[in-house]
Amino acid sequence: MSLVIVGSVAFDTIETPWGRREKIVGGSGTYCSLAASYFTRPRIVGVVGRDFPRKTLALLRCRGVDLDGLKIRAGKTFHWEGRYEKDPNLRTTVRTELNVFEDFRPDVPASYRASRIVYLANLNPEHHEYVLGQFRKPAVVAMDTIRLWIDTKREALLRELGRVDVFFANDEEARLITGEMNLITAGKALVGLGPSLAVLKKGEHGALVFGRDFVFGVLAHPCEHVIDPTGAGDSFAGGFLGYLDKTPGRTPRDIRRAAVYGSVMASFVIEDFGIGRFLTLDRGQVELRLRQFRKLSSF
Amino acid sequence: MSLVIVGSVAFDTIETPWGRREKIVGGSGTYCSLAASYFTRPRIVGVVGRDFPRKTLALLRCRGVDLDGLKIRAGKTFHWEGRYEKDPNLRTTVRTELNVFEDFRPDVPASYRASRIVYLANLNPEHHEYVLGQFRKPAVVAMDTIRLWIDTKREALLRELGRVDVFFANDEEARLITGEMNLITAGKALVGLGPSLAVLKKGEHGALVFGRDFVFGVLAHPCEHVIDPTGAGDSFAGGFLGYLDKTPGRTPRDIRRAAVYGSVMASFVIEDFGIGRFLTLDRGQVELRLRQFRKLSSF
Repeated sequence: MSLVIVGSVAFDTIETPWGRREKIVGGSGTYCSLAASYFTRPRIVGVVGRDFPRKTLALLRCRGVDLDGLKIRAGKTFHWEGRYEKDPNLRTTVRTELNVFEDFRPDVPASYRASRIVYLANLNPEHHEYVLGQFRKPAVVAMDTIRLWIDTKREALLRELGRVDVFFANDEEARLITGEMNLITAGKALVGLGPSLAVLKKGEHGALVFGRDFVFGVLAHPCEHVIDPTGAGDSFAGGFLGYLDKTPGRTPRDIRRAAVYGSVMASFVIEDFGIGRFLTLDRGQVELRLRQFRKLSSF
Repeated sequence: MSLVIVGSVAFDTIETPWGRREKIVGGSGTYCSLAASYFTRPRIVGVVGRDFPRKTLALLRCRGVDLDGLKIRAGKTFHWEGRYEKDPNLRTTVRTELNVFEDFRPDVPASYRASRIVYLANLNPEHHEYVLGQFRKPAVVAMDTIRLWIDTKREALLRELGRVDVFFANDEEARLITGEMNLITAGKALVGLGPSLAVLKKGEHGALVFGRDFVFGVLAHPCEHVIDPTGAGDSFAGGFLGYLDKTPGRTPRDIRRAAVYGSVMASFVIEDFGIGRFLTLDRGQVELRLRQFRKLSSF
């Protein structure tokens, strides 16, 4: 059991049709590790400023997240501000203050170096090598990316795709990387670029998982009120990789299950602002929703 | 076993990124009855001109479609011309020549009047009453619509929604009718308008079925080459209603199965221009694809 998540731990200011929240806790590393914490004891590599609430660190620890790799630096925590329109897929970045994240060098603590699974959450692809060089042969390297790196670091991104095992992308990113409009063709093309698994996230339409010789699809949980879509992708990755981390095998059946748990975790996080939903969520609710997913699509 | 389909039997001129076809056979009634013919012996109510190919009528008969309700009139057959962009959901109508369809009064032959299921395929909602008045208490009345009627006959459409049992809509239509952006809310709102089942078709993302107290989702078959999306919705309805017609019950399980067969038939028709795929499709391939649908989404 050893999943390391390299990502941001941040403040978000978020406006959605349901309201506005100032400087609530967010960040890819936070979402991913909280989601993964329902399956395993994830380890985090990241940085926050001294203004980051100790209560949140205590909460993460209490959920079993290992914070040995989280540095606390003089300065302010990364702060992102975004706005969502009525269509939750339409997101506008209002402001990004990198603060202590600006010159963050992800140093992996010695205690993490033998970890089995490494997740690089929308890291600059030019920094992957520096991070991965610190691990001893992880069994699975997974990555996500953002449009910024597709637009500005395409070559490095394509190189890294050739090195990772699992790649998470949303539909827009998959189309931009592959130049393919059809999502099935795009998903297969992503696998052709290197990873043995490409996970294509489609928001309200669910997700598709592409492997060398299989396609698997999972519907989204029918959610009427998407309060705050922030963190859905990272929570998906957290559920997916967290489940894989606690599972000895790597059969197609394990992959399918992992994808459903990913969807389950994403379906919870969007029900409240920020990490709010994780404050009350217990493992029983996770299992109940897995059964609801089965009921939704079985025939 | 008695499903009556009231719809158009027509010529289509179609341009897609895969090519152009002039005056090939199309029409909602044609697609729906061919798809339904894999499950039951559908009956058709419609009109064609004397220019309509006798070979196609022979084909329909050969597939078990009852043509007693299809009138052949002096004049030309309805002719629609459309173009699809790279995104198969983007469709432009180039030309519509109603011809003999212009003053078509759907008269139901005496032999059809005791039918169990009636499907009104994008008929002007003001004509529903005239059609339905000719039937003796059908068990299921189903309807589809088009944006034209939502824009121009909204009141009549809403009135008819209160009278039918099954309503088929695509995502755009569902949003326009209900004013709801969220598709789950929109689907539930459709059921609130009258029908006991609302089937929300989402193209490449599959379909959702809403009932009074359940939601069911089916993924689309992963198709890389959507050669011609024309008729997908009517083929869905044909598979759905055809399966229901041959099934004695109306349990949630029957409804789920019907929706999957609808998706199966839609997934075939888009693989070739017009009704081309139905020329070679056999029942064994239909069953094989049903199993592929199960494999795609089971976990």
